[in-house]
Amino acid sequence: MKWAQSITVTLRTIRTLSTIVTCHARHRRMIVRFAGLGLGAATLTTVAAASGNTNADVLPPSLDVSSFMAEPVTPRSTLIKDKDDMKVKMEMLIMKIQADFCRALENEEDPSKKFIVDRWTRAEGGGGVTCVIQNGKTFEKAGVNVSVVHGILPVDAVRQMKARGKELIGKELPFFAAGISSVIHPSNPHVPTVHFNYRYFEVTQENGEKMWWFGGGTDLTPYYLVEEDVRHFHSTLKKACDLHDAGYYPKFKKWCDEYFLVSHRNESRGVGGIFFDDFEMHSQEDSFKFVKSCAESVIPSYVPLVKQHRNDPFTSAERDWQLLRRGRYVEFNLVYDRGTKFGLYTPGARIESILMSLPVYAKWEYMHSPSDGTPEAKLTEILRNPKEWI
Amino acid sequence: MKWAQSITVTLRTIRTLSTIVTCHARHRRMIVRFAGLGLGAATLTTVAAASGNTNADVLPPSLDVSSFMAEPVTPRSTLIKDKDDMKVKMEMLIMKIQADFCRALENEEDPSKKFIVDRWTRAEGGGGVTCVIQNGKTFEKAGVNVSVVHGILPVDAVRQMKARGKELIGKELPFFAAGISSVIHPSNPHVPTVHFNYRYFEVTQENGEKMWWFGGGTDLTPYYLVEEDVRHFHSTLKKACDLHDAGYYPKFKKWCDEYFLVSHRNESRGVGGIFFDDFEMHSQEDSFKFVKSCAESVIPSYVPLVKQHRNDPFTSAERDWQLLRRGRYVEFNLVYDRGTKFGLYTPGARIESILMSLPVYAKWEYMHSPSDGTPEAKLTEILRNPKEWI
Repeated sequence: MKWAQSITVTLRTIRTLSTIVTCHARHRRMIVRFAGLGLGAATLTTVAAASGNTNADVLPPSLDVSSFMAEPVTPRSTLIKDKDDMKVKMEMLIMKIQADFCRALENEEDPSKKFIVDRWTRAEGGGGVTCVIQNGKTFEKAGVNVSVVHGILPVDAVRQMKARGKELIGKELPFFAAGISSVIHPSNPHVPTVHFNYRYFEVTQENGEKMWWFGGGTDLTPYYLVEEDVRHFHSTLKKACDLHDAGYYPKFKKWCDEYFLVSHRNESRGVGGIFFDDFEMHSQEDSFKFVKSCAESVIPSYVPLVKQHRNDPFTSAERDWQLLRRGRYVEFNLVYDRGTKFGLYTPGARIESILMSLPVYAKWEYMHSPSDGTPEAKLTEILRNPKEWI
Repeated sequence: MKWAQSITVTLRTIRTLSTIVTCHARHRRMIVRFAGLGLGAATLTTVAAASGNTNADVLPPSLDVSSFMAEPVTPRSTLIKDKDDMKVKMEMLIMKIQADFCRALENEEDPSKKFIVDRWTRAEGGGGVTCVIQNGKTFEKAGVNVSVVHGILPVDAVRQMKARGKELIGKELPFFAAGISSVIHPSNPHVPTVHFNYRYFEVTQENGEKMWWFGGGTDLTPYYLVEEDVRHFHSTLKKACDLHDAGYYPKFKKWCDEYFLVSHRNESRGVGGIFFDDFEMHSQEDSFKFVKSCAESVIPSYVPLVKQHRNDPFTSAERDWQLLRRGRYVEFNLVYDRGTKFGLYTPGARIESILMSLPVYAKWEYMHSPSDGTPEAKLTEILRNPKEWI
């Protein structure tokens, strides 16, 4: 069953071409997506979704990959052999979360606009699957990235990890990291931006000791505050946390407020959510189940807000405010975000997948400040004084 | 002679108001500029240019401040008392450079659009004068900032300095810094962006030893490559360097190429210029004269390019390319630029003056790549392979 294909073509002078060629082969659908992006030239990106790979093996039902956006990063033979290893379990989880989320978003988008899917490999070890919608009707930019990478962590990346509270012995350490990361920038200023990221790390120290931990979080960045929506968002995350420990939501809500702080402006990036790192509570299996619950709560926490507001009328002044807030988003991501820094310092990292979190457009105005009493001022007030939502 | 005024008013629902009230008093001109910036609200910024201050003294001709954009940061009594101190000499130089440059730019702008001038103080010591044009006809954003600050350097800022090669003894050190910093983002994609920065530092170490040094540079970021313009720019800088040492230009040109590298993309920010740091060659006076020559070469190196191209016709595709390149500019400034980092980590720093270097609009497109043979590809090629221009 060798249906997977990898094609690279350069298309010239096509500004935005998006064609889907769908054909049926042996009862599975193979999708080849041509995506011409940007000015002048374009790179063709391809994916054979839910197909086999060159060292294909018949997968047992527990390893069903047929709904995934692309073939997993790890070869099927390894998935089968190591199916009980946390590395494989995490890869399977994040591939499924990616596919479910992308399809839930496509349901809110113009039917002619689908995610382009880039399956990429990393020369130093591993690879990933990056799914992007750009300049859609509902989503100005939606990126959902899975990466499963391994190799040696360089000093700068180790430093980014240590900043997270992990004290690691050694300067260059063998590591494995599997994570899903997503940022959705909607077109309509009344639909909030969401970000989530769930990841699993293994690091082998110089003394041979292996460490593992999970990290992650989901947080919301509205441009206009609808308190009911924020309560819905937080309640959904709390429910997912409460399944595991009643102490998790308050702890990780606070951590989120502290982490997503644009400290040079002394304002939060958004209205928070949950955030945790160095998570290794109880057994590895229990930790994984908690992360699974969190990741599965993304769709019910966010997609209803998209559905509700994606057709709200808006003014050009509201669009302008959205762009200014996106400028702040860029500031946080490039100045503070450890995930971004970790990526930028990891050799062979796929820059386009890391910076896919940046909006299409952002704006800065010297000394901008919203007038008292406006909805813009109301949001700013909340960003300066994070509150309890539930 | 107390003509200086400081007024703060909030204007509501005014999008872009710029009114100049000019009146004459005692043979000097007092300018109060009202600048409504942005959406909804606006903050009134004020300046009494070339006027006195509260502890005004009659200045000798060598300390003539009448042409400056605002009253210098340091009180007149101190300027007179310490007129031969390098701190005062540097402040006088950068105030003059700021005024000359702002006026040269205003000559290329719509006559109704003038720099707004914010004179600000820093609670921890010192202050500055920030001049900005926003949404002009020629300049989408032009910022020229002078800061003269002193106090105690915190650990994070010390670290930024150490990264520059300075090994300093102590964790929190008394410091003085006077600098001018400017970024000009023109409206027309055929006019390049320019950045320059010239600064003087004094740091007193824990052992009481005082260190001083200069730093600075001027560099060009075109959106479309006009080789003749780049040669003119580099030749003008080289001339300024050659007045002092024939080895300076090649050395500082190379340093510039190395410094302004967006390393995660392995491309230069622009076509370079000169850059130096930890400069303390020969005597303090000789070092100052070199910096003065460099700062005085900004106008002749750059303004002719504005004059020549500001009315060039351009397409929306060219505008789009300009915005994408501005996204890269933002990446460099927020991820790598040590001046920006130094600012963000300095307590009481004026964030709006530091981030005034960011463009009004920037854009990111996933996997954008210009087509072979286009002017955009030609520029990209040069950014990946810096060359000798003269």
